[in-house]
Amino acid sequence: MNPLQPPPTPADVKETGRIDAFSDGVFAIVITLLAFNLQVPSPAQADEVGLLTLLAQQWPAYLALIVSFALIGIMWVNHHRMFQFIGRTDQTIKYLNLLLLFSITLVPFTARLVGEYIQQRDATIAAVIYGLGALFIAICYNLLWQHLLRHRELFLATVDRGFFEGTTQAYWIGLGGYTVAVLAAFVNVPLSMGIHLALAIYFALPLRVRRRG
Amino acid sequence: MNPLQPPPTPADVKETGRIDAFSDGVFAIVITLLAFNLQVPSPAQADEVGLLTLLAQQWPAYLALIVSFALIGIMWVNHHRMFQFIGRTDQTIKYLNLLLLFSITLVPFTARLVGEYIQQRDATIAAVIYGLGALFIAICYNLLWQHLLRHRELFLATVDRGFFEGTTQAYWIGLGGYTVAVLAAFVNVPLSMGIHLALAIYFALPLRVRRRG
Amino acid sequence: MNPLQPPPTPADVKETGRIDAFSDGVFAIVITLLAFNLQVPSPAQADEVGLLTLLAQQWPAYLALIVSFALIGIMWVNHHRMFQFIGRTDQTIKYLNLLLLFSITLVPFTARLVGEYIQQRDATIAAVIYGLGALFIAICYNLLWQHLLRHRELFLATVDRGFFEGTTQAYWIGLGGYTVAVLAAFVNVPLSMGIHLALAIYFALPLRVRRRG
Amino acid sequence: MNPLQPPPTPADVKETGRIDAFSDGVFAIVITLLAFNLQVPSPAQADEVGLLTLLAQQWPAYLALIVSFALIGIMWVNHHRMFQFIGRTDQTIKYLNLLLLFSITLVPFTARLVGEYIQQRDATIAAVIYGLGALFIAICYNLLWQHLLRHRELFLATVDRGFFEGTTQAYWIGLGGYTVAVLAAFVNVPLSMGIHLALAIYFALPLRVRRRG
Repeated sequence: MNPLQPPPTPADVKETGRIDAFSDGVFAIVITLLAFNLQVPSPAQADEVGLLTLLAQQWPAYLALIVSFALIGIMWVNHHRMFQFIGRTDQTIKYLNLLLLFSITLVPFTARLVGEYIQQRDATIAAVIYGLGALFIAICYNLLWQHLLRHRELFLATVDRGFFEGTTQAYWIGLGGYTVAVLAAFVNVPLSMGIHLALAIYFALPLRVRRRG
Repeated sequence: MNPLQPPPTPADVKETGRIDAFSDGVFAIVITLLAFNLQVPSPAQADEVGLLTLLAQQWPAYLALIVSFALIGIMWVNHHRMFQFIGRTDQTIKYLNLLLLFSITLVPFTARLVGEYIQQRDATIAAVIYGLGALFIAICYNLLWQHLLRHRELFLATVDRGFFEGTTQAYWIGLGGYTVAVLAAFVNVPLSMGIHLALAIYFALPLRVRRRG
Repeated sequence: MNPLQPPPTPADVKETGRIDAFSDGVFAIVITLLAFNLQVPSPAQADEVGLLTLLAQQWPAYLALIVSFALIGIMWVNHHRMFQFIGRTDQTIKYLNLLLLFSITLVPFTARLVGEYIQQRDATIAAVIYGLGALFIAICYNLLWQHLLRHRELFLATVDRGFFEGTTQAYWIGLGGYTVAVLAAFVNVPLSMGIHLALAIYFALPLRVRRRG
Repeated sequence: MNPLQPPPTPADVKETGRIDAFSDGVFAIVITLLAFNLQVPSPAQADEVGLLTLLAQQWPAYLALIVSFALIGIMWVNHHRMFQFIGRTDQTIKYLNLLLLFSITLVPFTARLVGEYIQQRDATIAAVIYGLGALFIAICYNLLWQHLLRHRELFLATVDRGFFEGTTQAYWIGLGGYTVAVLAAFVNVPLSMGIHLALAIYFALPLRVRRRG
């Protein structure tokens, strides 16, 4: 950006390194613990109905796991992509990043909720809460991103304009997409979960492909 | 500080790096597991009362989560701030840091206690224990800080005087503040939780703003 | 490989470093939580039968723990071996690595399943699922490896031919071996678990020894 | 050691760095999850007996937590001390380190066992198993150390003789001490737990003090 921008000092590198490491830790724990929502059926019940039947009946838990793993995975890639070009941090980044991590740690809870209630009367409520959780993550990313856009001196000198434009666009699409997912949950729960998966696939595509589409 | 102070060797950097990484790991696990205190209501109960009502009744768990996430988050930022300028470590730092991490790992337990008991007869006991847990963390930080103040050769040469004075002052305020939070719990539990939140916000402010106030 | 291949930039190093760190985090959490499948017998029951008897009756849980710890440990060493020579990453590596980590996070679940059902009527189903889980991991490694083979410019310039040949061969043996373990589960459950252990020992041997054999 | 010993290459540094990071991850998870053995008493019971009484009755769980936190903490410092001077790794180190981490992951289980059974008839069995777990860790450290002693070329050139002698001596004392703790458990359970604590304090002392004593 600014050719006179000084390169990050060792203390800067250490500081951004610890934010990366801490965030990676939280992402890694959350993504790993999602699979702990899977229940092992009790042998007593399996003796009557058969283990395979009981495992098959747990399909909502598998669906919640897959959608949530994709959600967290994509969010980790996004975090990675954002922080990769940051050379310096300030206090605000730390606190907005903490808020973002807070939104991430809620996912195993909302995932369990959706897995447990998708076949119940209150499926809509569970899916709306799940969607609100994802929307909360998108809002946190936008808060962090808006702060960074106002402090471009925190970026490495090598970042180009296309990165800023592409990322801004992607984050607005995220806000819009998760709002649609929340609204869709009021109409049809599987549709809402499908939108979550579609958004994860969309965000997984490289920046260039997305902007061409 | 001392212009003749030699820069840290690669072995020093590796050593402090592992303390950072280990501490970040503990902070990340603790902060992530706080959200695992949230319970998914049983579908049987939800069929009678409604899922939304059951979730709303869990408000003490959400309160405990938010206060505790703020507490751990701030403590992580403090840890970060302290170790950022340390160029060398000794055995005492390792053990005092372990003691500090011990105090951090107790928070999910005291948070569950407060979440479970805030509407019960023994709410005061739970809030006092929660406050003592936070005070214990503050004491551990002070022990570590007092040791560092007596061994300024462990710091990088670039640290200035204001950092030492500001940090010392902040830690004394921490000790005082959490003592007040414990005492307040005997009088009024929500007041005590409010003081915890206020302290987190206070510590979140940058050093300069705090000293001006 | 290509003597003109440019060395990795600092941004490349940071990026591969975060993939390593995130993957190490997931592996570390999974391998640690395996031991949480061990149950502490209830004192009431122990008063009648004796603690030692109750602990001895848990042998399937110990077997599942040992086999699974070996499985995850070996998979971590393999991950390590693969990424050690990668100097640059692309988006596809990130997503294939996430898929691989997904397969890893399922192991505590399939391990609990096998530990719980090995003495039940449905032992075969549990062992087949355990084998399919391991086969899924092997497939993910192959997907990642095939991508890397097509993009050798991502490797450090120092990697030699023998590494590529040896690794390719080892991964095909993995695919074959875990397929045999799945098939063996239909015939004899302990045999299938034995094959899992044998495969872990095989992969633990250094490349050179394996190719000589 | 050997003045002609070449300095570690970047690939060596990356490799030892990932072993450090993975091990730190396992240590961090184990040490954090120890506190999850603490139970929040049920409000129903607390209404009758009082929360404070119920919490006080849990003293064996606190004892098990403190002894185990000290055990894992000291073991982490030891791991740190050993790997700090390693410049290069081989496959055997990786597998012996995995075995060591396996022994570490068993501690939350044996700690829960001792916490649950210290006031029961089978307290001796629980304490013996706890001691055997600690002895297993000590054996794993010795296996790793003996391998390193036979491959001193893996160490950085700066390590001096006193380090090798002091560490060897400390590890023999560990083996002997934990054997005594196991034997003591047959006679008196609190005595055995006291020996565990004394050993942790002994290992916490710096090398020089220990050798003078």
